[in-house]
Amino acid sequence: MSFFDSRWVERPDYVSELDAGLLPSGFLAGALAAGLKGDGALDVGVLLCMAPSVTSAARFCDSGVLAAPVVLCQTECDLQAIHVVVANSGNANAATGEAGLEQARRVQVGAANALGFEPRQVAVASTGVIGVELPGEQIADALMGVGPRLDGGHAGDFAAAIRTTDAIDKHAALALELSAGTVGLSAQAKGAGMISPHFATMLCFVQTDAAISAERADLLLAGACERSFNRISVDGQLSTNDTVLLLASGASGIEIAPESADEQRFAGALDALLRRLALLIVRDGEGAARIGRIHVTGGAADQTEAVARAIANSPLVKTALHGGDPNWGRIAQAVGATLRGTSPLEFDIQIEGIEVCRRGAATGHDLRRLTEAVKQEEVQYEVNLPGTGSFSECFFSDLSYGYVKINAEYTT
Amino acid sequence: MSFFDSRWVERPDYVSELDAGLLPSGFLAGALAAGLKGDGALDVGVLLCMAPSVTSAARFCDSGVLAAPVVLCQTECDLQAIHVVVANSGNANAATGEAGLEQARRVQVGAANALGFEPRQVAVASTGVIGVELPGEQIADALMGVGPRLDGGHAGDFAAAIRTTDAIDKHAALALELSAGTVGLSAQAKGAGMISPHFATMLCFVQTDAAISAERADLLLAGACERSFNRISVDGQLSTNDTVLLLASGASGIEIAPESADEQRFAGALDALLRRLALLIVRDGEGAARIGRIHVTGGAADQTEAVARAIANSPLVKTALHGGDPNWGRIAQAVGATLRGTSPLEFDIQIEGIEVCRRGAATGHDLRRLTEAVKQEEVQYEVNLPGTGSFSECFFSDLSYGYVKINAEYTT
Repeated sequence: MSFFDSRWVERPDYVSELDAGLLPSGFLAGALAAGLKGDGALDVGVLLCMAPSVTSAARFCDSGVLAAPVVLCQTECDLQAIHVVVANSGNANAATGEAGLEQARRVQVGAANALGFEPRQVAVASTGVIGVELPGEQIADALMGVGPRLDGGHAGDFAAAIRTTDAIDKHAALALELSAGTVGLSAQAKGAGMISPHFATMLCFVQTDAAISAERADLLLAGACERSFNRISVDGQLSTNDTVLLLASGASGIEIAPESADEQRFAGALDALLRRLALLIVRDGEGAARIGRIHVTGGAADQTEAVARAIANSPLVKTALHGGDPNWGRIAQAVGATLRGTSPLEFDIQIEGIEVCRRGAATGHDLRRLTEAVKQEEVQYEVNLPGTGSFSECFFSDLSYGYVKINAEYTT
Repeated sequence: MSFFDSRWVERPDYVSELDAGLLPSGFLAGALAAGLKGDGALDVGVLLCMAPSVTSAARFCDSGVLAAPVVLCQTECDLQAIHVVVANSGNANAATGEAGLEQARRVQVGAANALGFEPRQVAVASTGVIGVELPGEQIADALMGVGPRLDGGHAGDFAAAIRTTDAIDKHAALALELSAGTVGLSAQAKGAGMISPHFATMLCFVQTDAAISAERADLLLAGACERSFNRISVDGQLSTNDTVLLLASGASGIEIAPESADEQRFAGALDALLRRLALLIVRDGEGAARIGRIHVTGGAADQTEAVARAIANSPLVKTALHGGDPNWGRIAQAVGATLRGTSPLEFDIQIEGIEVCRRGAATGHDLRRLTEAVKQEEVQYEVNLPGTGSFSECFFSDLSYGYVKINAEYTT
């Protein structure tokens, strides 16, 4: 089965899939059990790039309650030249104050010492429960023995170590045919819930052996994140820990020049990769079984965006998706609730191409056909607001008994 | 058991409770089965005030997708002198366009003809599925025989006819001791879900036999709604049909003068009545078993309000409330997600008076005591943001399997 198993993401024709455990040249990865998950499971992932010419780029969430590892990365790392990534699951190290920052620093320094780098060359990331102290020394101790465990074929271990409630693997390795030759591109993501502080957070680590300047890497990553991780919602909740890191080793010897045709191809592959990973996070949304895509067109960008988000986050729309319920009135409700004071609003709704509402009023439709359409694994909704020129899309999961079960149970 | 059975609403000492089926003098009510619910259940409620001096006031939601009955009330009714209210359940008559407006008009004209009033003196309200044509003629036909069914002791029938998924009765009758004598005050509400278009909407009809000018009635109703129905959330969704109507018959012969001590007492009773009805809607939130109250203090009104709403609407906070889970990190997450870009944010969190977070960082707390505190039927959360002078409160229900079950099932 192809990694690109969604009608909403196409694999570019110059991209082929490799064994998902492989890393591009210049990278090693591995994982260890530091006792955070408590059952001997892998809970610390380490990624290493030895290439002296490494470049990197990073994106973080902008919560008012940023986790300690995010703050540490933003204030004490050289984010354009990261060589080592240490990511732990089982503890978010968020809302932990100065003490939490010190614990994150211990992990950073521990990895730097173990692998022979400066602390500023080591990025850290965490995911798990909020408000619990991270045992930084314990992780640093475990990191002392990590060197021999690192391998260019161990991306799967790294991916396993950063997962929490994830039920679906979220990593892939690709080969891209560029004009100057072939480069590798791989990524490992975790996330089941845009955020769930129970076991939470979206993390994604991307590697390539192409040579890219830090400035262009930043630009490419920003655009790809905007079209992928920034377009999904499991429960409309923003994490304290979200982190996306791209590292380029340059070890392939192939340089991607700014604004070149190769850069376009690389951007296309990065887009497809992150977009597919984002859809897997939605598909793996806590308790979720189905994905919806809402596509809103209209004249005002702020309106199309707000309406798309409101529909994606509406518990009524999400429970209807869960139940395979053709109750399109809930979409009308979400539109009206977002654009308050605009009545009478002339808007249209189509579900899987079946028009159910035109200019704000119900149209006759084939209920049997609609009922079948909303029972698919992927359901597409379209809303047209007055005007033209703007559009917004959002992918979302259904809201299920499973979500309630996962999130109603006790913290520990 | 007292109607005022919550620590968050006190019954003023000049207020006593009457049989909930009684209406103040000058009012008659009744109900009939017009076939909208389809099983012979009462689905149309009629309220009548014969007093020529009646005054009234109204409040509606401001969705961009307003239901036909709301539009009809706003454009074709004399909202300061309503004599008749016809409210149906089983069909919201929303997103039904011009045809829906015509059907609402048929109900209005039918009631006017049956009871001897002008159409502009008849208000209509609907609740139920969105996007389905209302059989106006069928309701108008049924209304022809409603006269003899109306009675001053039939408020319970009226309340039953407007209920949908409501599991809890939401009506009360009170006697208020004012300086000039005793007046009656009663109300019937429905709502189980701030909105659920499956069977949806918040409606409330209030009656008094005091004499109040339409202008003062409007002012009193606006304030009471702001402190009650505008402070609750079951699922953060805004209805297309919300309607609150206050009718004052003046039949007691007791006039409430503007800015008098009696007006203050009347306002206090109205506040308590609507606030208690609002809490019952939350308590009856689809599938809900428990109520949370979030109280946010700080220096900026827009921040306290946004944070209170975000916490009240967070599916993570609501599932934690459902599960009796002391996971306060979810509240920290909601605070940070609302006040993006403000990190490091110095905020405090108390749950039932137990401090769990101070200046943005976890404090030690007695987990056993906290765990017991969050298992009560009513749970109080407090968040302190930087600054002083502003506060916002919001009441919310838990998110349960029941909510998913009710809302995932098929429309019909």
